[in-house]
Amino acid sequence: MDKKLIGVDLGGTTIKFAILTQDGEVQQKWSIKTNILDEGSHIVPDIIESINHHLDLYEMKPEQFIGIGMGTPGTVDVEKGTVIGAYNLNWKTLQNVKEEVEKGTGIAFALDNDANVAALGEQWKGAGENAADVAFITLGTGVGGGIIADGKLLHGMGAAGEVGHVNVEPGGYLCTCGNRGCLETYASATGVVRVARDMAEEFAGKSALKDAVDNGDDVTSKMVFDLAKEDDVLAVKVVDRVCRYLGLACANISSILHPEYIVIGGGVSAAGNFLLEQVAKYFKQYAFPTIRNTTKIKLARLGNDAGVIGAASLALKFKD
Amino acid sequence: MDKKLIGVDLGGTTIKFAILTQDGEVQQKWSIKTNILDEGSHIVPDIIESINHHLDLYEMKPEQFIGIGMGTPGTVDVEKGTVIGAYNLNWKTLQNVKEEVEKGTGIAFALDNDANVAALGEQWKGAGENAADVAFITLGTGVGGGIIADGKLLHGMGAAGEVGHVNVEPGGYLCTCGNRGCLETYASATGVVRVARDMAEEFAGKSALKDAVDNGDDVTSKMVFDLAKEDDVLAVKVVDRVCRYLGLACANISSILHPEYIVIGGGVSAAGNFLLEQVAKYFKQYAFPTIRNTTKIKLARLGNDAGVIGAASLALKFKD
Repeated sequence: MDKKLIGVDLGGTTIKFAILTQDGEVQQKWSIKTNILDEGSHIVPDIIESINHHLDLYEMKPEQFIGIGMGTPGTVDVEKGTVIGAYNLNWKTLQNVKEEVEKGTGIAFALDNDANVAALGEQWKGAGENAADVAFITLGTGVGGGIIADGKLLHGMGAAGEVGHVNVEPGGYLCTCGNRGCLETYASATGVVRVARDMAEEFAGKSALKDAVDNGDDVTSKMVFDLAKEDDVLAVKVVDRVCRYLGLACANISSILHPEYIVIGGGVSAAGNFLLEQVAKYFKQYAFPTIRNTTKIKLARLGNDAGVIGAASLALKFKD
Repeated sequence: MDKKLIGVDLGGTTIKFAILTQDGEVQQKWSIKTNILDEGSHIVPDIIESINHHLDLYEMKPEQFIGIGMGTPGTVDVEKGTVIGAYNLNWKTLQNVKEEVEKGTGIAFALDNDANVAALGEQWKGAGENAADVAFITLGTGVGGGIIADGKLLHGMGAAGEVGHVNVEPGGYLCTCGNRGCLETYASATGVVRVARDMAEEFAGKSALKDAVDNGDDVTSKMVFDLAKEDDVLAVKVVDRVCRYLGLACANISSILHPEYIVIGGGVSAAGNFLLEQVAKYFKQYAFPTIRNTTKIKLARLGNDAGVIGAASLALKFKD
């Protein structure tokens, strides 16, 4: 009998679930709202109930599963299966997620942080094409990432893959981490807008982006990229700067890890090939020849499914 | 019977050998000159002869060894055990080192590049204290390195650990790799001198370093650090700049890998704690809080023995 995997992608507004084959084929998908009331104390019971309910629905038993894998915000202890400090879930104290879910479902459970499981998803079934060495960068509200080296997700002492805090401009923009010049301050959705506002101030020519900033319009990262695609002079400059920092970070990641692919995902990556080509241009400028000609920069392919797919792959470790 | 390991550190002038226990204790050491004549064709036969000769001398047999590990300059194919492009050995064409040494000694043989084996040596028996996650940077004529993550040496697509080409100053000094601003152009022995000459030109005050540069004296990296220790104003500025770039590179390596230790070795690291403290200062400035408080920067401890010890550790993979 071919046992299945369950993947869970726990986010601040939605919890996504999927049942997958061991080859990573999604067979069932569903989701529930995240109830963060009462210090997030409903979240784990809701997950357990939803899994049990759906197994009933599909007439499946715990024995038919290799395990459950889950991606979560916050600081994860992979060994113990605990989470702390997931503020968008109201989880301020230590959560014994593994213990509770295993008890509640009777299925083995593994946990990692959300950027790491998205990296695993893209590496396994997405743009990473199951290569042994893949770096993943996600450009969202913040910038996160995950590193797969020699087929394994890297943790280091816990925070490996925090590419959002790679310093690309010493003395640059102040980051929420307290440092100045982190990649996140330029290449996250909010970072792109920050660069746009900053450059608009010093820009004198004609630009719809400058007009929007000056009018106090609600400027978004998408607007900046859309205007750049239409050759708005200021927007083109903003995108160039953002892509230069991204290219530099990709080059430095590659000099250290020499991955086969660097996969870029997250909301900002919706700008597509327009973003990719400019990042690749600067990557080629900053990477040394061996790297330049072998590491490829690609766009993520799985979109929102990266989380559940990568999470499910965590459970493969329970295979026999 | 406790089987032993043999480590070989192949360099442009000397080939070092050691016999070690499986715990990495060096029991015998010897060395021979590297004969690079005739396109380096004597090197592998000399290695085989020297090993066989010493086994005779110590009345040991091939069966008493788990294997031989070797570090070499050039581009290594770890799977095939071949080397190409080791110019200081005159090895321009592909060398079937593994095949020849195994045939000539009757002992299993493993190969990796010299910076990687030095990293393994320091991780196993040196400043890395056998931690699972260690990054090693060697500051010599060039800047090289090696990364151990989750207990394994990283190769990526072959060039992982090339920290000398981490870009610390986009548009900066021209590197031999063709790029501008690689760490190597500032923090290698020649890089330090380059920074010194450059800063001397714009320096107006009183400085023995400036005098040396202006007099056309033979300025060395050691001289720069020695003068900085004596508070020579220009030398202090030069060391500060070099350490700033090193600290930045260490911070970025750590944001990606979160190692327990970053170990700094090579000739320039002879400047000791004077260097270390200034690198650590900038590391703490550029690293984000989680990293800053957990990753430690240390000086290498094994000196020239790192190569043979790390090389020997490669042979541990043949253990049963």
